[in-house]
Amino acid sequence: MFYYDNKLQYTVRVDTPDPRFARLLQQAIGGVEGEMRVCLQYLFQAFGARGPAKYRNMLMSTGTEEIGHIEMLATAVALNLEGAPSRLKDQMAADNPVVEALMGGMDPRQYLSAGMAALASDANGVPFNGSHVYASGNLAADMYANVTAEATGRALACRLFEATDDPGMKDMLRFLIARDTMHQQQWLAVIEELGGHKGTLPIPNSFPVEEELRKVSYDYFFTGVDGVDLPTGRWTQGESLDGLGEFRLNAVQPMGEEPKLAPPMPQAYAEKQQMEGAADHK
Amino acid sequence: MFYYDNKLQYTVRVDTPDPRFARLLQQAIGGVEGEMRVCLQYLFQAFGARGPAKYRNMLMSTGTEEIGHIEMLATAVALNLEGAPSRLKDQMAADNPVVEALMGGMDPRQYLSAGMAALASDANGVPFNGSHVYASGNLAADMYANVTAEATGRALACRLFEATDDPGMKDMLRFLIARDTMHQQQWLAVIEELGGHKGTLPIPNSFPVEEELRKVSYDYFFTGVDGVDLPTGRWTQGESLDGLGEFRLNAVQPMGEEPKLAPPMPQAYAEKQQMEGAADHK
Amino acid sequence: MFYYDNKLQYTVRVDTPDPRFARLLQQAIGGVEGEMRVCLQYLFQAFGARGPAKYRNMLMSTGTEEIGHIEMLATAVALNLEGAPSRLKDQMAADNPVVEALMGGMDPRQYLSAGMAALASDANGVPFNGSHVYASGNLAADMYANVTAEATGRALACRLFEATDDPGMKDMLRFLIARDTMHQQQWLAVIEELGGHKGTLPIPNSFPVEEELRKVSYDYFFTGVDGVDLPTGRWTQGESLDGLGEFRLNAVQPMGEEPKLAPPMPQAYAEKQQMEGAADHK
Amino acid sequence: MFYYDNKLQYTVRVDTPDPRFARLLQQAIGGVEGEMRVCLQYLFQAFGARGPAKYRNMLMSTGTEEIGHIEMLATAVALNLEGAPSRLKDQMAADNPVVEALMGGMDPRQYLSAGMAALASDANGVPFNGSHVYASGNLAADMYANVTAEATGRALACRLFEATDDPGMKDMLRFLIARDTMHQQQWLAVIEELGGHKGTLPIPNSFPVEEELRKVSYDYFFTGVDGVDLPTGRWTQGESLDGLGEFRLNAVQPMGEEPKLAPPMPQAYAEKQQMEGAADHK
Amino acid sequence: MFYYDNKLQYTVRVDTPDPRFARLLQQAIGGVEGEMRVCLQYLFQAFGARGPAKYRNMLMSTGTEEIGHIEMLATAVALNLEGAPSRLKDQMAADNPVVEALMGGMDPRQYLSAGMAALASDANGVPFNGSHVYASGNLAADMYANVTAEATGRALACRLFEATDDPGMKDMLRFLIARDTMHQQQWLAVIEELGGHKGTLPIPNSFPVEEELRKVSYDYFFTGVDGVDLPTGRWTQGESLDGLGEFRLNAVQPMGEEPKLAPPMPQAYAEKQQMEGAADHK
Amino acid sequence: MFYYDNKLQYTVRVDTPDPRFARLLQQAIGGVEGEMRVCLQYLFQAFGARGPAKYRNMLMSTGTEEIGHIEMLATAVALNLEGAPSRLKDQMAADNPVVEALMGGMDPRQYLSAGMAALASDANGVPFNGSHVYASGNLAADMYANVTAEATGRALACRLFEATDDPGMKDMLRFLIARDTMHQQQWLAVIEELGGHKGTLPIPNSFPVEEELRKVSYDYFFTGVDGVDLPTGRWTQGESLDGLGEFRLNAVQPMGEEPKLAPPMPQAYAEKQQMEGAADHK
Repeated sequence: MFYYDNKLQYTVRVDTPDPRFARLLQQAIGGVEGEMRVCLQYLFQAFGARGPAKYRNMLMSTGTEEIGHIEMLATAVALNLEGAPSRLKDQMAADNPVVEALMGGMDPRQYLSAGMAALASDANGVPFNGSHVYASGNLAADMYANVTAEATGRALACRLFEATDDPGMKDMLRFLIARDTMHQQQWLAVIEELGGHKGTLPIPNSFPVEEELRKVSYDYFFTGVDGVDLPTGRWTQGESLDGLGEFRLNAVQPMGEEPKLAPPMPQAYAEKQQMEGAADHK
Repeated sequence: MFYYDNKLQYTVRVDTPDPRFARLLQQAIGGVEGEMRVCLQYLFQAFGARGPAKYRNMLMSTGTEEIGHIEMLATAVALNLEGAPSRLKDQMAADNPVVEALMGGMDPRQYLSAGMAALASDANGVPFNGSHVYASGNLAADMYANVTAEATGRALACRLFEATDDPGMKDMLRFLIARDTMHQQQWLAVIEELGGHKGTLPIPNSFPVEEELRKVSYDYFFTGVDGVDLPTGRWTQGESLDGLGEFRLNAVQPMGEEPKLAPPMPQAYAEKQQMEGAADHK
Repeated sequence: MFYYDNKLQYTVRVDTPDPRFARLLQQAIGGVEGEMRVCLQYLFQAFGARGPAKYRNMLMSTGTEEIGHIEMLATAVALNLEGAPSRLKDQMAADNPVVEALMGGMDPRQYLSAGMAALASDANGVPFNGSHVYASGNLAADMYANVTAEATGRALACRLFEATDDPGMKDMLRFLIARDTMHQQQWLAVIEELGGHKGTLPIPNSFPVEEELRKVSYDYFFTGVDGVDLPTGRWTQGESLDGLGEFRLNAVQPMGEEPKLAPPMPQAYAEKQQMEGAADHK
Repeated sequence: MFYYDNKLQYTVRVDTPDPRFARLLQQAIGGVEGEMRVCLQYLFQAFGARGPAKYRNMLMSTGTEEIGHIEMLATAVALNLEGAPSRLKDQMAADNPVVEALMGGMDPRQYLSAGMAALASDANGVPFNGSHVYASGNLAADMYANVTAEATGRALACRLFEATDDPGMKDMLRFLIARDTMHQQQWLAVIEELGGHKGTLPIPNSFPVEEELRKVSYDYFFTGVDGVDLPTGRWTQGESLDGLGEFRLNAVQPMGEEPKLAPPMPQAYAEKQQMEGAADHK
Repeated sequence: MFYYDNKLQYTVRVDTPDPRFARLLQQAIGGVEGEMRVCLQYLFQAFGARGPAKYRNMLMSTGTEEIGHIEMLATAVALNLEGAPSRLKDQMAADNPVVEALMGGMDPRQYLSAGMAALASDANGVPFNGSHVYASGNLAADMYANVTAEATGRALACRLFEATDDPGMKDMLRFLIARDTMHQQQWLAVIEELGGHKGTLPIPNSFPVEEELRKVSYDYFFTGVDGVDLPTGRWTQGESLDGLGEFRLNAVQPMGEEPKLAPPMPQAYAEKQQMEGAADHK
Repeated sequence: MFYYDNKLQYTVRVDTPDPRFARLLQQAIGGVEGEMRVCLQYLFQAFGARGPAKYRNMLMSTGTEEIGHIEMLATAVALNLEGAPSRLKDQMAADNPVVEALMGGMDPRQYLSAGMAALASDANGVPFNGSHVYASGNLAADMYANVTAEATGRALACRLFEATDDPGMKDMLRFLIARDTMHQQQWLAVIEELGGHKGTLPIPNSFPVEEELRKVSYDYFFTGVDGVDLPTGRWTQGESLDGLGEFRLNAVQPMGEEPKLAPPMPQAYAEKQQMEGAADHK
């Protein structure tokens, strides 16, 4: 279960409120690279964790930290919306400052739906979608999902850093960027602890590899037509990363036949011509 | 641009049609771990690729291969739906075999909406959602997104393998599992080519690390209350994976203050008591 | 504005309640082929209609009829859910008839969320999505959208007819299928009134065709590789349907060059190797 | 910011795992009446709270409690999925117990996507959608949103109670139902504290009522045609609840005119007949 | 069933078209606080109404009125889009007035997808989502859902009133705000008719309260850590609103144990280390 | 299976990058009228095609062409985003050009999430949704769905043509508009090949028309109240388009009764008053 503190994990200060930046911050709250996603992803991975208890515990700890990041960003949104109409009025010689603020790049729903506060949505107002909460039941797959979340999350935070000149906002982002630096490596450290590539690949490593069609397990199939350069690299030669094979480069060839489906069954109510014509036409 | 062949990349054969398995296969078509996602993800990464041309080319080649995997799975769905009513009729002593088939675990929309064919949806009928197409503009972040897709994809394929006894379906899955083995390692090979952890971390590596708040960049913050075990591991000690710091374990402490928002502005139409009471109440 | 009657447009009778059929009926309520979609589509087309007033009026009339079809189907769902537990209990020798009913193919949310009534969702429980409300501002495009809705809607109703043996339900579906017969032809009658193919094509017919690249306006581009049959038909020869050209068959050829994107701009925070390597690598 | 404990808020025990009940529990996790929604709704209301600080604090406290309810339910799902194949095997004389379990009413994605654990989705597998997180900036509106969430939430929990015979699950639900009893009344107590109906209505009470069209502010407009009973009740007579008017019953009459839109502008690319015909046709 | 009139329920007049206001109006059409939602919510509650017939009738009447509100708002959108390019051209010294209009804050899809008319979406272009149609089968829960819809709806309308200076639009909003005043109180009047708090709480009142864990039914659990103020108020003392208990304030304590999940079953394809390590690691 | 070429199907050139136009182009990529939809729609129709093989082949060919249209548009987006900050800086005398570009009408996620590249979303950032992939199993229904897609798609392309002055972009759009001209007629040519209206209507033509309620199959039901003009036209008189009846105009009349639902069953947990009052109240 959970507890809260009335203080923020790190200072959130806005020197010059900017309702337009409040819109951009939404991406870090409810976007696919945002804090709602990482928070829920780590917590759901923890709640369903099977195997060594320490990984559940580690996931709980970081998932709990991330709730506080949502809080920080929602606070930052609310502060950026304060004084919105008046500031934008100056810039735009507007008749109606509320209209102008709304139209000058802010998310209209931060006003219309939330009365000047944050939403559970991304920078385009698209609501947070729970399908991004990856918790596969496979620890290595989940760790890579987490690295991805923190890598795209840090790229997002760096871009937000670029998109503001406000010293308070930059200070908050320096903290969040640093936490993403840590969290990327935290998940990769688990991979290292599990034995690195040879200890984890192919994921899941509990499926017996002899069951798969081994003759295509290390082939880079090239699907380009004549005239396209061959994309060679580490993936076309040398030992495979799982240590169980050798990478190769092969032009793709159909190994299957032309698909043949049965005529429509009567209950499917295709057009009559589809049923009659199945034999005659070609 | 693109071309097609009238043959499948690998044989798709169904020995005993099973409309219930047709539902499960939908997860590998339109699910978050499915082929529509990887196909579109690699193609969008290719279409927006900036930097060394060979990575664009490699992504195009594999993205194009994946279109053919959607084709294979959609064919497998259609074949599993053939003979659906009659087979299930036998098992269930049903009055109305269509009803029984529909109710016996198949996706009703494969009949109602598609006339016994595949949908662009997952195993619960949730439509494919384009927000899962990750193409961040950062090559390392994208490679980890791709590893994640192939790791969860291979776990899915292994679970589907478990969920069928049909020799034809098992044969098709052996092929797809093997391709996922290759593709996981293909994306990790790019990370290796870029210099591994020290060459790529923290992602993005083009943001100057001195801009981030370095004092929290390698701290594992523990958010558990008294009585919870400390989750120690590789992530709490030793050199950080980027080679730029040292992991540490610290109990989390608030570094910020209690957030203070301004009273509601009049245009936000809060309740009067919120505006009046801002000063008096506590 | 609108008025209601306390009677249904057509009798809704359920002789033997079947909670499983209640699930299938959801597709005709909130599915992409369902009545919520056609109702809202016709009303939004009416609300935004510009041009001859009679089409607005016609759309209002049929859109209003369709609200009553949602009412009929929602009533049918509620009636099919009556007596659900007891009936299924008999069939299944169940310990807990509610559980068994829920698990025996019904939509669990019809019980859990609605207390035995209809939802604004499809047969898989996916909520109705307003993006299916097509109202393009172009009358011909909208008429074809409406034909599509009624064609897929009638296919759905026929399949539902197949999926029930209940005389009351079959009677209701006979009515709905007949209305779809009418509505398909109603929209096509507008196309006829506008002059048929030559009066409406290409849609929109108000864009000057000389602005388009006429040399590819009637070419069927074949994208198959060697060995694939040429798909010939009415679309590869004869006068085009708009009367302005001649259909032709051509193998596709790239008319463009290889795309070349600029290197990443610094603010995009790609990996350093993408920026450095843009020149050297290939 | 937030902290966690390694213990659950209340005991979660499953005596006889039932993968089908695991599906139903998903509604209480990721459904519109579920714990993810209330948790995030209360926290977002707290994060954006303006006005008396005690309401922010109260919302933080209850929002934090709700995270623990997600944890309890996710744990309950995981436990219900243990032993799934073997138990269902017995019941069904199945060839392949995994297939049978998957088909026997469980959510296939709990296996395929999560390896036998909970998802951030509802009982039909529809992902949690952030648009249900209501935080309007108006305290009274939010309190009613919260009452709604707890009223539908308690109805859901009561229905789940009905749908299981497992003593452990019933025990957990007794706890959750009791908490919903408290939370419903907690939000209504705020309304009482704000002065009840006269203190809060109409919501928002900060908009000057003289600005609205007072002559229709207390009219129940009846839209039924001849022959429909008049729906009389407290809402058609007596003092209005805000104490500012008197309820009345009136048959609806159009107070507006027929809408007249301008012809399509050329850039909208309607059909030519829409532009030409705007004058002539009727 | 339903009928229509060619007149609007109330006058819709736009004195100075403003394509940017047309975007904001979308929130009142397809947003979560909008008219599509209330219209469909009341109609679905009516269609599934069980119990006293007069409530069904009342819901039908108001649901039908709301269809006309969608019509009014869609008309307002269409009128605000007339003359869009030319007006904005003046303001912006633009090269291409269509581009400028599109970029100056309007919803681009009102032009691109609808040819200058309304969409079934919110102010950010997010499509209407049927999951917001609450019809729980419990009359009291539904009434509170309806109060919520009208409270957030009136807050939205007041904010829109603030966001326009157009006399015609203000006149229309005065009407809609007044109707929301009525509808809020209409639903609360039903609660009064059912006996108020003591007659309806806890919702559902048909579940025997002795089945719930009474010892936590009136406890306000405080989850704050040391140093956080206690949030006291009406909800921490005095008789509970249902008249069946007494509110209390208690610091939360775990009443449960640490959750223990079984190791992964083999068919779940976790990593091998999760299966092996379950015993050894901690 | 599929192959790719490193060249585009047609030249994509941007003379003056415009990040705002990059946003509009998204509608043609991931919007409901866009290329992802047509591409996947034709491919899914092909993958599930039953009946004459030539239609499968034709669909494969055109579906494959459309992948290349996504590629062209994604390339156009990437090129329009190049130089974004600097160009907009000039126009706006901005302090921070990145902020200004982001706020000046571009899609912020093209920067924040994609690092200046295309997304799988529409012009409002709403992700592509697979439910728009229509593949009904009925050839005629599918052809009309395809005509609709190409008609709304061509309207979109014409509107985009209006929204840019860039010669390169206009050139690309001339090509795409011409291809839509072809594809509209290609699908209608199939209808002609199947025998036109009399050969295909009512769709599906395999359902025996005598099963439907023939007495309402050709009635235009007028739902207007007194005072509304009758909407007469081709659909109210003359032979029906299927050649099997005669159109008629009739004022709608209820043919059904008032719906009567049973009282709530106890397990549905309605309010007690709903259960008790079912008899007494009216």
